[in-house]
Amino acid sequence: MSFETDFAAAVTSREVAGRLDEHDPLASSRGGFALPEGCIYLDGNSLGPPPRGALERAREVIEIEWGGDLIGAWNGRSWIDLPSRVGHKIARLVGAKPEEVIVADSTSINLAKLLGAALAMRPGRAKIVATPDDFPSDLYMMRAAAESHGRRLVLSTDPRASLDEDTAILVMTHVHYRTGELRDLAALTRAAHAVGALVLFDLAHSAGALPVELNAADVDLAVGCGYKFLNGGPGAPAFLFVAERHHATAANPLPGWLGHAEPFAFAPTYEPAPGVRRFLCGTPPVLSLAALEVGVDSMLAAPIARLREKSMALGNLLLERVRGRCAEFGVEPACPLEAERRGSQVSFRHPAAYAVVQALIERGVIGDFRPPDVMRFGLAPLYLRYVDIWDAAEALREVLATRGWDQPRFARRGVVT
Amino acid sequence: MSFETDFAAAVTSREVAGRLDEHDPLASSRGGFALPEGCIYLDGNSLGPPPRGALERAREVIEIEWGGDLIGAWNGRSWIDLPSRVGHKIARLVGAKPEEVIVADSTSINLAKLLGAALAMRPGRAKIVATPDDFPSDLYMMRAAAESHGRRLVLSTDPRASLDEDTAILVMTHVHYRTGELRDLAALTRAAHAVGALVLFDLAHSAGALPVELNAADVDLAVGCGYKFLNGGPGAPAFLFVAERHHATAANPLPGWLGHAEPFAFAPTYEPAPGVRRFLCGTPPVLSLAALEVGVDSMLAAPIARLREKSMALGNLLLERVRGRCAEFGVEPACPLEAERRGSQVSFRHPAAYAVVQALIERGVIGDFRPPDVMRFGLAPLYLRYVDIWDAAEALREVLATRGWDQPRFARRGVVT
Repeated sequence: MSFETDFAAAVTSREVAGRLDEHDPLASSRGGFALPEGCIYLDGNSLGPPPRGALERAREVIEIEWGGDLIGAWNGRSWIDLPSRVGHKIARLVGAKPEEVIVADSTSINLAKLLGAALAMRPGRAKIVATPDDFPSDLYMMRAAAESHGRRLVLSTDPRASLDEDTAILVMTHVHYRTGELRDLAALTRAAHAVGALVLFDLAHSAGALPVELNAADVDLAVGCGYKFLNGGPGAPAFLFVAERHHATAANPLPGWLGHAEPFAFAPTYEPAPGVRRFLCGTPPVLSLAALEVGVDSMLAAPIARLREKSMALGNLLLERVRGRCAEFGVEPACPLEAERRGSQVSFRHPAAYAVVQALIERGVIGDFRPPDVMRFGLAPLYLRYVDIWDAAEALREVLATRGWDQPRFARRGVVT
Repeated sequence: MSFETDFAAAVTSREVAGRLDEHDPLASSRGGFALPEGCIYLDGNSLGPPPRGALERAREVIEIEWGGDLIGAWNGRSWIDLPSRVGHKIARLVGAKPEEVIVADSTSINLAKLLGAALAMRPGRAKIVATPDDFPSDLYMMRAAAESHGRRLVLSTDPRASLDEDTAILVMTHVHYRTGELRDLAALTRAAHAVGALVLFDLAHSAGALPVELNAADVDLAVGCGYKFLNGGPGAPAFLFVAERHHATAANPLPGWLGHAEPFAFAPTYEPAPGVRRFLCGTPPVLSLAALEVGVDSMLAAPIARLREKSMALGNLLLERVRGRCAEFGVEPACPLEAERRGSQVSFRHPAAYAVVQALIERGVIGDFRPPDVMRFGLAPLYLRYVDIWDAAEALREVLATRGWDQPRFARRGVVT
């Protein structure tokens, strides 16, 4: 804490922030992204910006591969291998073996698959344990899975206390979408395993943002999102992880031709492919999947430990600047103050959070509003600068100091988490 | 029959075929597609070729919308409306009301959603009725749905005879993927309704290929594919149809945030959106979805009745030419001879079908092999010419007349249906 505060407090001027940027070993990676002029983008945890290679790759897929080889591109251009190939790359970002990760469908659909698989692996146990304020879409799917499997969803603010011999699975997001709280993968997994339950983590807000060590933590199952910190493009396909020790027993409750052991045999009976490939279902959207690969490649070019270091520094600086410049306007942190307990985002609470975020967006500082009163700022160290953080805090002060921003000037329209 | 035979028999030379092309009212639409030089593409029912607008649209989405507006594009560029907007357009191709169709996920996942919804709507009935040789991936999902809902899958070559008061739903593909047989939507629906069962049709091989009249036939539920005759690009998102009369009761068993009544409220409890929008789940792959819209637009530009007319003529001509030129080599039709009973494809049986199709592909005539012994030729009237059909039959004869083609020269690698 004191080092963090000291570091942030030492940034006493925009010039000092600029010097940090000059010495930033990640500075050159910013050039790999197409960011609009004058925009401070603190929403890469909702939708990462386009890596510069995305357009060229799309052109190649459409013009050369699809247009040139037509159906032959599935084999000739290895489209058929894309879910595994990109999965192998994501595996490096989440501490998994290559063959434990595959790209498929959406995060929600992957959650449905893994919940179904997990419940079948723990047949005698009635409970899915989760937290009541977890990502809503995950909760919808958990409740649906509980109902369709004759189990029940137990929501607890202290989920560890709800774990018992009747628990089939503990499901949590690794980094909380609103507060940015980083959960302890290893401790939660140990607690679940101690009662014989499985764990499933949603890595939407951690994959690509910080080191994730699935196997070191002995995690069983995970899902994650392609369009946030992985910069895969709007609605990019998602991924899923199944620990190798479960490959023999985990069954996909949504079986499809691409997860068949012999997809091109068109056999009338389903025979699951070995390993995680059985969790494929239908044909993947190749254009979006190819763009995701470009995003993942851009992540892999930077050492994740260095990304984490900078992300923590950016978060500390934003917290410190907002504390110093905006506290008088009733802004309060809504995230852990200790960088080690945060994901790659910082959140604040304010009664007029919605209107304030809209006013910031008008000034080119793009953050997110999350109901009921949270302003969320994603910190993607690949393309953010220390001066961006400085400027964002100044913009927030200016907005807060202006009268009238708390009027309902904007229809309440949200954006994608 | 006799008219058809007469027509096809009247095409006595390549020149006559060329004159048919000159007078073809659809001739100009071929220019809207990027087809490789010298290629006769009879596989548009596996993967349609790129409409010329696809690349420009992808550039716009990546550079201007994603790159320019970042997260703001969800509302500012109406990405959020894409599933409905493209659904409305597809509705025109399948005889549905705009608000009955939505684009989402893959065909298989949509099948899982609608099977789940249908079984919940017919709780006391044990049977899902289907045909044993239906599209394998559909069968996998039917079997999984039956098992997870405590029902049973009844496969019958005469499915109507298996319908009874214990039947929850009849599931069939509208056009059979291998034989091209076109099923009678209205008669099958009447038969199912007569015993109180629902019907679900897979339109993968009919949407965009021939007039589909879902509401005229009183169909309950349907799914369909975006990358075949709709030319939406590899793995383009799929669509689903729910008849309006079921909107109040059909529940999505795979609920996700985008199908919520208020997606941006992030409410902890799922509240389904009104109508078919509740069958959305996660975030759609925008790049692939935008390309699909270009493909659908290219279909809507041509009157479907005229497409059907030409497709029937192309099929008749191919059957007649192959009969005349290739029968001596043991090639037999594997599709209905009457154009009214066929979808937009023609199939043949031959013991060495796999090797023959590979040899044709080497000559630039792209068809499909389907196990065990079927050569399948898709007939997309938007870009195929009568001379293409003439040349394809000649190429087939040449291949068949060559010794050695029946050797296993090629590893058996398939392509996507």
